[in-house]
Amino acid sequence: MKTVCLISGGLDSFVSAGIARKDGYELYGLTIDYSQKHKKEIEYAKKIAGFLNVDEHKIITIDLSFLSSALTSRNIKIPEKPVTGIPVTYVPARNTIFISLALAYAENINADAIYLGINHIDYSGYPDCRPEYIEAYQKLINIATQKTVKGGRILLKTPLVSLSKSEIILIGNSMHLDFSLSWSCYKGEEKACGKCPSCVIRLKGFEKAGLKDPLEYK
Amino acid sequence: MKTVCLISGGLDSFVSAGIARKDGYELYGLTIDYSQKHKKEIEYAKKIAGFLNVDEHKIITIDLSFLSSALTSRNIKIPEKPVTGIPVTYVPARNTIFISLALAYAENINADAIYLGINHIDYSGYPDCRPEYIEAYQKLINIATQKTVKGGRILLKTPLVSLSKSEIILIGNSMHLDFSLSWSCYKGEEKACGKCPSCVIRLKGFEKAGLKDPLEYK
Repeated sequence: MKTVCLISGGLDSFVSAGIARKDGYELYGLTIDYSQKHKKEIEYAKKIAGFLNVDEHKIITIDLSFLSSALTSRNIKIPEKPVTGIPVTYVPARNTIFISLALAYAENINADAIYLGINHIDYSGYPDCRPEYIEAYQKLINIATQKTVKGGRILLKTPLVSLSKSEIILIGNSMHLDFSLSWSCYKGEEKACGKCPSCVIRLKGFEKAGLKDPLEYK
Repeated sequence: MKTVCLISGGLDSFVSAGIARKDGYELYGLTIDYSQKHKKEIEYAKKIAGFLNVDEHKIITIDLSFLSSALTSRNIKIPEKPVTGIPVTYVPARNTIFISLALAYAENINADAIYLGINHIDYSGYPDCRPEYIEAYQKLINIATQKTVKGGRILLKTPLVSLSKSEIILIGNSMHLDFSLSWSCYKGEEKACGKCPSCVIRLKGFEKAGLKDPLEYK
């Protein structure tokens, strides 16, 4: 059994890929270099792929710098603290694009599943992180490819979708994942900032889990 | 009203975009350079975008050369005649990827629609050209983006989906589209080959429509 694992370089997709390995899949890592402002997460994705000893790690480059988002546009500032509603870090259709690329890769290697680290608890503002979004995408996949119309299955697996950050960290910890290899900070500086919404959620998760984050902060 | 029109350089997407203009939309052209074996269709997409006087023509480059298909892999030969079933020219998840990129673009410019020239009559073998595929994608779109979850609509429009090639040609002709600006041949040589499945379908379509194809053939 093979699976494509989307590996962003962050903590969630690391744990999701760890679960895929535990579930007995051969791992094919996929990272998308989509002109995010910093390349730090690509470096960390490579470290994670190495740690997980994936069969292959594919990095696909696509220039999405024309999209308005704090993660892609230099004109929109990364927020300094968590916000309510859909945040400025939302990238139009990003997960729809990422899953479509994972689907192409999965069909190409005859994989049975795609593992995603998406989660709608801590990021409830993102429309493309919700369970109903995943259900709709699964229905599309079931009729979208040569493999699936011939009766094969490509399952969209989102083991973390309804877990809190501390639960995700505890699961990763139980699998002995080295979290110092994952990068969550929206900024690409030498050390994580500890202040952006992504750092704040991560740090609170570690605190609640009763663990120390091994990543270095400013 | 704005729409994103996927413009491949071929005849169908040209007519589809022409219909979008007739329907009263401002046109935003999108062409995907996905490492297809030849770049001829990109050149023709530019000619079409110019002819239609689109507000913007975006070309997104993405390296899909790792996918097994006669259109992307040098190891798989373009078939010399039409085949039954899913042809070797099928590219895994290609339309799912293209529509996801069109969706990102549409949301970014606050467009109301995406026009696609897909058709399931002449290419019945492609799973991602069928009406049920489009319906499933529309359902996904309705919950996938910031715009659509807030009550806005991004409609997937496929005006050609159930038309024959000759009907498509007649519609394009009635709108005075210059078909010499469209390229259908799977080969990227100086002149169209006239023999590959795509050329054969096009030539038969013109014949049945009682019109002369203005494109030069070998």
